[in-house]
Amino acid sequence: MTINYPNGIPKRYQKEAKIKKKQKPSFSNRGMSFEEFINQSNLYYLSKEIAVVHKKPTPIQIVHVNYPNRSAAVITEAYFKEASTTDYNGIYKGRYLDFEAKETKNKTSFPLHNFHAHQIKHMKQCLNQHGIVFVLIWFSSLQRCFFLSANHVIDYWENKETKRKSIPLKMIENCGYEIQLGVAPIVPYLSIIDHYILKGDSIYEK
Amino acid sequence: MTINYPNGIPKRYQKEAKIKKKQKPSFSNRGMSFEEFINQSNLYYLSKEIAVVHKKPTPIQIVHVNYPNRSAAVITEAYFKEASTTDYNGIYKGRYLDFEAKETKNKTSFPLHNFHAHQIKHMKQCLNQHGIVFVLIWFSSLQRCFFLSANHVIDYWENKETKRKSIPLKMIENCGYEIQLGVAPIVPYLSIIDHYILKGDSIYEK
Repeated sequence: MTINYPNGIPKRYQKEAKIKKKQKPSFSNRGMSFEEFINQSNLYYLSKEIAVVHKKPTPIQIVHVNYPNRSAAVITEAYFKEASTTDYNGIYKGRYLDFEAKETKNKTSFPLHNFHAHQIKHMKQCLNQHGIVFVLIWFSSLQRCFFLSANHVIDYWENKETKRKSIPLKMIENCGYEIQLGVAPIVPYLSIIDHYILKGDSIYEK
Repeated sequence: MTINYPNGIPKRYQKEAKIKKKQKPSFSNRGMSFEEFINQSNLYYLSKEIAVVHKKPTPIQIVHVNYPNRSAAVITEAYFKEASTTDYNGIYKGRYLDFEAKETKNKTSFPLHNFHAHQIKHMKQCLNQHGIVFVLIWFSSLQRCFFLSANHVIDYWENKETKRKSIPLKMIENCGYEIQLGVAPIVPYLSIIDHYILKGDSIYEK
């Protein structure tokens, strides 16, 4: 008679089960960038009619277009323009969402040079209009993802006294919210917003 | 002694004054398209910290980029992609705004072929999320501008029984709101929204 341990797994398979349990899903070898994680998450939210969030197309300055035939225009000379806003925005439960998705290989801090002045300015403008504004940060070496509300990013950016060039991970852990990546969606960032919209707390008080 | 008429203008200038009064400001010769009117209006609202509304960049499929030197990338082959959303969105008093700006030379109706299925779908999705969704229509031959809430556009688009190919001007006059163009901003569309946000009416009840 086989005696099964309380977890229902025969003794000879216990070691294997323990190893599988310790292994967290890894997002490092999926061949997708963090931006693609976010885009997939947004598609999921859209398909489930949960939220309507899109990435804004990269702005391009078009200089020359060819028309080899009536229906196919080919752009033959164009230049990348600097975006005047953040990359993502949309609507969730009647509220305006606006955010940037950033990643870093750093293990102890997030470099501020990843932000541009116009993005900070845009975030401030949206905050003034009572939008829900934040940054999603992916520490790729650590496989850790955080939601950080924009007011913290703006404070660090503008804090000229300390002249810090990066936001310490410890600060992000304290003032932000860690997001466990999943499958559907990969980055469930709305769960952070839910926690505050549903609970009625201001996301900007932490 | 000169006797001035009750309006304070001497008799000899009355005719001139009458002509000037009848002339409405014309927007036909300013060399600007309706889209440029909207963009200027959004810049005005942004600069006055009234709202944050931007036009989304045209999405482009980039096929080839040259790097003649480190800092200047040149796109040498790219194609226009069809946008999956409407052209404008943003935030005003905490509410999500989403709209299209369209113009027509027609004098009696607005052709539905100006809309694409994905724009209609996007408008429905945003309405479901309780966004303020609408279309700004410029009848250039008539020099008249209207705000029409999205539910009316969607109803016409989906109304297969009548198989109408356009929205009659009379319907737009009845169900929409005429906007008087001005200078700062040129298209004061937020005044329509104010009338309903401030008054607490649902913009979708008319």
